[in-house]
Amino acid sequence: MKKQTTFITSLILSLSLSSFAQDNDSTVIRKFFNESLSNGKSYEWLRDLTTNVGPRLSGSEGAKKAVQWGKTLLESGGYDRVFLQDVMVPHWVRGAKEEGYILDGKQKIKVPLVALGGSVATPKKGITAEVIEVKTFQELRALGKEKCEGKIIFFNRPMDPTKINTFEAYGQAGDQRRSGANEAAKLGAIGVIIRSLSSTENDFPHTGSMVYATGVPLIPAAALSTNAATLLSKTLKENPNTKFYFKQSCETLPDAPSHNVVAEIKGSEHPEEIIVVGGHLDSWDLAQGAHDDGTGIVQSMEVARLFKNLGIKPKHTIRIVLFMNEENGNRGGVKYAELAKQNNEKHIFALESDNGGFTPRGFGMQGASAELLAKVQSYRTLLAPYGLHEIERGGGGVDIGPLAPQGSVLIGFKPDAQRYFEYHHASNDTFDTVNQRELEMGAASMASLIYLLDNLTN
Amino acid sequence: MKKQTTFITSLILSLSLSSFAQDNDSTVIRKFFNESLSNGKSYEWLRDLTTNVGPRLSGSEGAKKAVQWGKTLLESGGYDRVFLQDVMVPHWVRGAKEEGYILDGKQKIKVPLVALGGSVATPKKGITAEVIEVKTFQELRALGKEKCEGKIIFFNRPMDPTKINTFEAYGQAGDQRRSGANEAAKLGAIGVIIRSLSSTENDFPHTGSMVYATGVPLIPAAALSTNAATLLSKTLKENPNTKFYFKQSCETLPDAPSHNVVAEIKGSEHPEEIIVVGGHLDSWDLAQGAHDDGTGIVQSMEVARLFKNLGIKPKHTIRIVLFMNEENGNRGGVKYAELAKQNNEKHIFALESDNGGFTPRGFGMQGASAELLAKVQSYRTLLAPYGLHEIERGGGGVDIGPLAPQGSVLIGFKPDAQRYFEYHHASNDTFDTVNQRELEMGAASMASLIYLLDNLTN
Ligand SMILES: [Zn+2]
Ligand SMILES: [Zn+2]
Repeated sequence: MKKQTTFITSLILSLSLSSFAQDNDSTVIRKFFNESLSNGKSYEWLRDLTTNVGPRLSGSEGAKKAVQWGKTLLESGGYDRVFLQDVMVPHWVRGAKEEGYILDGKQKIKVPLVALGGSVATPKKGITAEVIEVKTFQELRALGKEKCEGKIIFFNRPMDPTKINTFEAYGQAGDQRRSGANEAAKLGAIGVIIRSLSSTENDFPHTGSMVYATGVPLIPAAALSTNAATLLSKTLKENPNTKFYFKQSCETLPDAPSHNVVAEIKGSEHPEEIIVVGGHLDSWDLAQGAHDDGTGIVQSMEVARLFKNLGIKPKHTIRIVLFMNEENGNRGGVKYAELAKQNNEKHIFALESDNGGFTPRGFGMQGASAELLAKVQSYRTLLAPYGLHEIERGGGGVDIGPLAPQGSVLIGFKPDAQRYFEYHHASNDTFDTVNQRELEMGAASMASLIYLLDNLTN
Repeated sequence: MKKQTTFITSLILSLSLSSFAQDNDSTVIRKFFNESLSNGKSYEWLRDLTTNVGPRLSGSEGAKKAVQWGKTLLESGGYDRVFLQDVMVPHWVRGAKEEGYILDGKQKIKVPLVALGGSVATPKKGITAEVIEVKTFQELRALGKEKCEGKIIFFNRPMDPTKINTFEAYGQAGDQRRSGANEAAKLGAIGVIIRSLSSTENDFPHTGSMVYATGVPLIPAAALSTNAATLLSKTLKENPNTKFYFKQSCETLPDAPSHNVVAEIKGSEHPEEIIVVGGHLDSWDLAQGAHDDGTGIVQSMEVARLFKNLGIKPKHTIRIVLFMNEENGNRGGVKYAELAKQNNEKHIFALESDNGGFTPRGFGMQGASAELLAKVQSYRTLLAPYGLHEIERGGGGVDIGPLAPQGSVLIGFKPDAQRYFEYHHASNDTFDTVNQRELEMGAASMASLIYLLDNLTN
């Protein structure tokens, strides 16, 4: 009987201890949400970043200002350390506002068009040519050199609206923007225009990076708004001899000096083990960069503030990283990992917020063991009351990607994805499209996960 | 051996049949989403309803137009039956635009203010009085008649920002709007102003219904924008003798004739058993009534179109109901249930969409047996790929509420709730705040649930 009693006693003890631990976790998470939703700073920080700093493409004055902005704000947070990491970044400039016209033989229809990031300029007077519309590279190659020589190739494959995960639809349409110019140049085309990678039919053209392959001619590449792409396609059906004109004067200048901004809260038990929380500080030049990725920046900064404000001392070192140059080079992410390796740092987790500032849905994990994934999934009971149901394998983030070979588990914050590609890389990615509650819930969600990961028994 | 084999064979057969059934369900659901997201009509219908019909408060010309709009559109859908139900509705009119001023002794500060629905007018020249600010009825009663007599009572309890479910925060703050005037009048106050029931700090006042209790004086009641309420509170702290002035000329006219609009798809196996899908056609007079409840109307209509378009013949009769007068009386809902009872109709399920047109999260069920709830929760595997994780007990909807005593299970469609109270009952509840994908996913979610319920073995 003795033994039995002891066993039961210890069972009860361990059950109540574990229930205490759970209670405690749920109390801390509740505090994160209460503080973020009642006294959060993320929204006002975002207002400041998007409207006072504004667009901040790598190499620009805006990017310089953003680095200073982030450093100053983090320094005022009272963390253990705030520092910059030097990094040379690409310096592409758009130049004068682009022009685009459909020339259907009868009239000249002005359409919204922007150069793709990394593209070369057109000749000063622009280019005019007949248009070949295709949906895929396969279709393009089947046309062959004869049909494409001297023409403007028009890639018009929309994002698939039936994909519930809009990032999947974006991924499937992305080859047109990234490599369309290379594929077209191989066949003698003189320019490329693409349908904007957008989930919405409207008049905002979406930019984004393209990269020239070695050994092919560099031809100019631009994006049309989805409405303009639809119009051009319709016009081509009516008159296959329709021409298109566009002019852009973008160019790539020599690499420019820039910085990642890092703030650190030293771990109380394992200071040598690092958890990164970050987003990217750069944005495209067209917009305020609100959802991409001002929201990720201010949410990461809010995670640090929440820990500090609630007096929660992490066991592991937490680093808030405002990465530079995610959009057109990922030099900041690469540099961060390079320095981590040089300094023999041990990164155990890296969490990135770069999917917009919408209502939180969950997290995607990359590089986690089955045990770790199951453990984090077991936190669903703690996280579901906040709408965080989706904890699955998935992408981490571009900036944190280079940490993977060092053994860090990568985690992508997953907000609701239905609206993101309405704004992504376009001039309508502005502060007013961000809802304060959604943003603040995201910050609290991130803090909650970091807290749970920091307390994983290991 | 024979028996064993037979058993195993039948097990395999039943497993594969059940897996076939699941596959089939998942295929149908996929089709609903594909069709709604690729060729959906809900968004264009919403544009039409919100911008061409516009505001449609019960008894107004807009409401008349809306009934005609719904009838015409449903008639063009080719359903088995479209009909109107006559119902007399309250007819409250706002009159001239209201005016509100803070009089701090030095200056006259104009603030955004709207009459609450159902309120009486002020005297023609308006009312001016000192202001007593309270957060609760308890606090008000503690002040007593002496302090309140001849004053304007200012209810300034905000919606609790820490509630993840914003409807809960709304519910907790709602007494100020609904009954504030009654409580204040009992103590001799001459008018009531309330902080708008809104989750956002901005300049849009939110209206909504209030009802006078019998036996108390009818004093005018209005809502201030949240920013104005914050300003008034601050001003009162600086100068407790601050006065407030407001003028409104609203009035309640005799009840007016109106209609519910109903469309029916006859059930193939149990035509006498009815499943209702609906929203409310009326809106407040201040706005286009996009999220409240244009989205519910067009989603309900889209459910019918999806069934028809995909050639899915329901076993039970599906009724699309565009209810009249949810906002200030629920006469349409009451009338619908009254007629159902009169006609000995058997309603088994009623699904309402009246929580905005945001990304779907799940459904709340009311009046379901434990078995039924568990059964519907077992569909999570079918629904989770579409973000529908939350299937729990919860409110159905105001319009369908009167069907509960007849044994109908009530179901509320639950979209993401973070943005709803930014727009609810205010002039910024406009078409452009609705995202097409979010709206269309909601319609497909509703169709999916109706399909599953229609196929419940019973
Ligand atoms: Zn980004
Ligand atoms: Zn409503």
